[in-house]
Amino acid sequence: MRLIDEPHHDGSALYVSTQAPELGSTVTLWLRAPRAAGVTGVRVRAVHDGEPRYATASVDAARTARAVGGYGAADVWWRAEVTAVNPVTRYRFLLETPPGQRWLNAAGPAAHDVPDSGDFRLVCHAPPPAWMADSIGYQVFPDRFAASRPMRELPGWALPRDWDRDPVIPHGPGTAEQFYGGDLDGITGRLDHIRSLGADTVYLTPIFPARSNHRYDAATFDRVDPLLGGDEALHRLSGALHARGMRLLGDVTTNHTGDSHEWFTAAVSDVRAPEREMFFFDPETGDYESWWGFKSLPKLDWSSDLVRDRMREVLTRWIGPFDGWRVDVANMTGRLGAADHTHEVAALLRRALPPEAAFIAEHNHDASGDLDRDGWHGTMNYGGFTRPVWAWLRGEDPGLEHFLGVPGGVPRRDGTGALATFRAFASHMSWRSLVHSWQLLDSHDSPRIRTVTGSRERHLVALGLQATLPGTPMVFAGSEYGLTGVNGEHARTPMPWNRPADQDLLTLAGYRALLGLRRAEPALRHGGLRWLHADADCLVFARETYEQTLVVCARRAPGPELRLGAHAEGVHDAPDGDVLPGDGPSFRVWRLAG
Amino acid sequence: MRLIDEPHHDGSALYVSTQAPELGSTVTLWLRAPRAAGVTGVRVRAVHDGEPRYATASVDAARTARAVGGYGAADVWWRAEVTAVNPVTRYRFLLETPPGQRWLNAAGPAAHDVPDSGDFRLVCHAPPPAWMADSIGYQVFPDRFAASRPMRELPGWALPRDWDRDPVIPHGPGTAEQFYGGDLDGITGRLDHIRSLGADTVYLTPIFPARSNHRYDAATFDRVDPLLGGDEALHRLSGALHARGMRLLGDVTTNHTGDSHEWFTAAVSDVRAPEREMFFFDPETGDYESWWGFKSLPKLDWSSDLVRDRMREVLTRWIGPFDGWRVDVANMTGRLGAADHTHEVAALLRRALPPEAAFIAEHNHDASGDLDRDGWHGTMNYGGFTRPVWAWLRGEDPGLEHFLGVPGGVPRRDGTGALATFRAFASHMSWRSLVHSWQLLDSHDSPRIRTVTGSRERHLVALGLQATLPGTPMVFAGSEYGLTGVNGEHARTPMPWNRPADQDLLTLAGYRALLGLRRAEPALRHGGLRWLHADADCLVFARETYEQTLVVCARRAPGPELRLGAHAEGVHDAPDGDVLPGDGPSFRVWRLAG
Repeated sequence: MRLIDEPHHDGSALYVSTQAPELGSTVTLWLRAPRAAGVTGVRVRAVHDGEPRYATASVDAARTARAVGGYGAADVWWRAEVTAVNPVTRYRFLLETPPGQRWLNAAGPAAHDVPDSGDFRLVCHAPPPAWMADSIGYQVFPDRFAASRPMRELPGWALPRDWDRDPVIPHGPGTAEQFYGGDLDGITGRLDHIRSLGADTVYLTPIFPARSNHRYDAATFDRVDPLLGGDEALHRLSGALHARGMRLLGDVTTNHTGDSHEWFTAAVSDVRAPEREMFFFDPETGDYESWWGFKSLPKLDWSSDLVRDRMREVLTRWIGPFDGWRVDVANMTGRLGAADHTHEVAALLRRALPPEAAFIAEHNHDASGDLDRDGWHGTMNYGGFTRPVWAWLRGEDPGLEHFLGVPGGVPRRDGTGALATFRAFASHMSWRSLVHSWQLLDSHDSPRIRTVTGSRERHLVALGLQATLPGTPMVFAGSEYGLTGVNGEHARTPMPWNRPADQDLLTLAGYRALLGLRRAEPALRHGGLRWLHADADCLVFARETYEQTLVVCARRAPGPELRLGAHAEGVHDAPDGDVLPGDGPSFRVWRLAG
Repeated sequence: MRLIDEPHHDGSALYVSTQAPELGSTVTLWLRAPRAAGVTGVRVRAVHDGEPRYATASVDAARTARAVGGYGAADVWWRAEVTAVNPVTRYRFLLETPPGQRWLNAAGPAAHDVPDSGDFRLVCHAPPPAWMADSIGYQVFPDRFAASRPMRELPGWALPRDWDRDPVIPHGPGTAEQFYGGDLDGITGRLDHIRSLGADTVYLTPIFPARSNHRYDAATFDRVDPLLGGDEALHRLSGALHARGMRLLGDVTTNHTGDSHEWFTAAVSDVRAPEREMFFFDPETGDYESWWGFKSLPKLDWSSDLVRDRMREVLTRWIGPFDGWRVDVANMTGRLGAADHTHEVAALLRRALPPEAAFIAEHNHDASGDLDRDGWHGTMNYGGFTRPVWAWLRGEDPGLEHFLGVPGGVPRRDGTGALATFRAFASHMSWRSLVHSWQLLDSHDSPRIRTVTGSRERHLVALGLQATLPGTPMVFAGSEYGLTGVNGEHARTPMPWNRPADQDLLTLAGYRALLGLRRAEPALRHGGLRWLHADADCLVFARETYEQTLVVCARRAPGPELRLGAHAEGVHDAPDGDVLPGDGPSFRVWRLAG
């Protein structure tokens, strides 16, 4: 598929005059129309108060003459003004072309009428904090990252394990009870490693006391687990990060608590306790709702003002050491049967947080109905990033039972299928939500990318996409060493600091190079995204600002050379010139002459 | 495109065990998999409280053996149970096939991951009244349909016109003031004609006093315009319809009133009047919001309790003579800038209405975000029906400036493009919302279908689609005679009762035959919709119940014969046999041997 002749627009600063429009303000939009597309007229359709209105675009002579980007001379730039009438104002382009009218929205060009769901969006809700779009994340599962001292005395239910000798129990008895003894001071001692990757934002899975190694079954939200070093250790970690200009994100369960949580024990011990209303008790049987039927995880009832007050207090009190939150099971929070408080909850919690705090939702399928409101800044974009990358780059037989929750293993799909999924999911959210969502190759809840791809080469292609596509890369600690894992539990391998045989240093070098490239190149963090070519084994796209065009070529297998159509300077594993080499698996990046 | 080998499911009774699931109930779903598709396993993915869950389907041996429908022997039927956990529970199918996993949702089959927006939906909100799915509508613009007596004395601003001699003024001065003198008793006198078409539900554009012939600028909602015969005439019309088992729908402006409305005049005459809060007055200038800036149509402020109380009272008090409402500018009602009360308004008005009253929203683009809630039963489906039909069947040069509000005239699109639009819009709403939405070929707000198609032959193909696709046909009075019109105003031609030269009796016969076919065949009102074939000039689909399969072939131009793959009996303009003839324009319907 040759895509380079398609007219293009996206929500980035190259095409939209502001990333944070005020309600009622005028916004300038630009459309880039390759001359080969033969566009003779452009209108913008924007929905105002529920009704479409049309604005006529005109040629932007200055941009057209300046030949923006390395392909600029081939493009005509159109410009129109629209008003951001509503909190979310949807718009698309109506193009006059030789074969007739064409629509262009975020889902791509269409020669037939399409619904509004794929339209571009101007979002006037308060913008995410400015630091987020530049950040590169690094996820730490505290028990498995680093231990500052010999293991503390464990509670009776816990099962001590040796860091380097005992393999992780991947399922069955002991899975949640096995303890390796990582702690927060251990993380503090390894910040040089994290920084060396280019990451600047550490995301910690839960650190509150619980009755499991993952701590998603919190017993309180009032203090840090002493097994991790307690509150003081959190302040030391946070202080060390902040001193380096880095940030720290927490992980909070808003859907449920643990059954040993003080709120829940108060509720079960006295039916007249104020906490009784915080959960869903059956008035007759005394039974209660829980996450997926796990009785250890009683579900919170967000129709309760007490839940609202207390959770608001929890989320705000830890800002300081934390610079924001990842919200566990955000997709189910406040949802049960006829009740759906999810958007209210997201909005009330975000309002309570300071404007510089990040607020990211776990959501493992399609979050688009929950984004672009006044709640979450973004989601964990498994659906729009992880899945298409996995399905395109999976190894011959990864032997996995599930595909991030979808039964039947990881399917094998072509580059065109991956592109269709990237586009479809991206088109269902604003550019801002896309950019502020996390793109993950793996996490503590999934198999490792190395196991999925089955080879260093395809792993590094996947990493290249993570480092160069829009969205915040979130690296799961250990994947930079090429660790493996067949499911989330199995992937929680203790870091191989003292196991050189488990350190793939070429993979580590790849992380430093590719995440370093993202850090060095503004176009990779703030540029638009224009797809240029897709076939079964190859995806080519441009990331572009007004000043700069980077071209990225990802190949999962060898194929024919492609002509770039412009002279380019290689900036990652790429020769200078105008040819995209055909070897693969490979991942290369060029800078076009401006 | 050969589509007959695609696995299929839709929301009709053939594939879903109930059209009105209760919250929390178990629903049986069926999937039909042609043997040629090679499906070896089927799962249903349903989103429960925000999280996808999977149910495994098994082969329904009884249905498979029974060979449901004329193509039945070629099909394997799969069956699964799902729970309607939420008010709207989205679901789709995951199919194991020889080339790998495939998704099937309402948007069609996909070999890559897709967002949830195209998923099927179980809707547990209270269902629409049972009579609606069987109804066939007929729209009357009262001033132009029939006069029971010589024109009454007109107010000073009105411009009297002669019914048969004065052409309609299509734009400019006089457009809204021209009066032809139709009245409600005139309609009562023509019910035989309406019934002869097969229609059973008369929809009247507004009948409240106003300062225009269209009366969308109501001066009161308390009484019927005396120019139309007053309240008594409405009761006579309603009584006559009800006596025949027919129904009557009203038209109410919830977005605005006229500037001569008693609420508005009270509000402007005294800034302390209680009615002041019902509109959007600028506290400094005294200026007010209005529909599209027309100051004669002041916009109602739905944050006002007084608006809510009074409009609720209006909508309920006229139920009796009326059997429901079409809501004017429903898409903008309650929307202005940061305010969006649209769903609240729809829900509160629907709650106020008796359960047997219809409640249909005007919406001229994509209503899907506003459907499947607890408000409107359906919409005027211009986007998902009128536009694709027009673009496929338009004449060589219809000479129209707009395409239902889209600038640039009516584009010319192929059958495959029309199918893509039918599917895309249908996939964004539940089957129930689709079935209860109106499908229009034209209305008082649009050019006439005859003008769009430019020929009787293509007009009758369009009519055939209106009569046989899911959705409630709504015929604009006069189109059954082949009347023309280049815009909404121009289309409001007085009926040609006394102008035989303006009566195309072959077109009239077509309406009687095709709407009569819909009335006679349950599959056309309640059957599923399965697309079988699409090319530039031809669309073939099946409407199917458990007992019966009808095959419909619409052609805009001649083309190759197609094999039906089963023996069939012609029920409309069609020979018995297994061949779909290639002549065109043509519209034919067959019944397959069961």
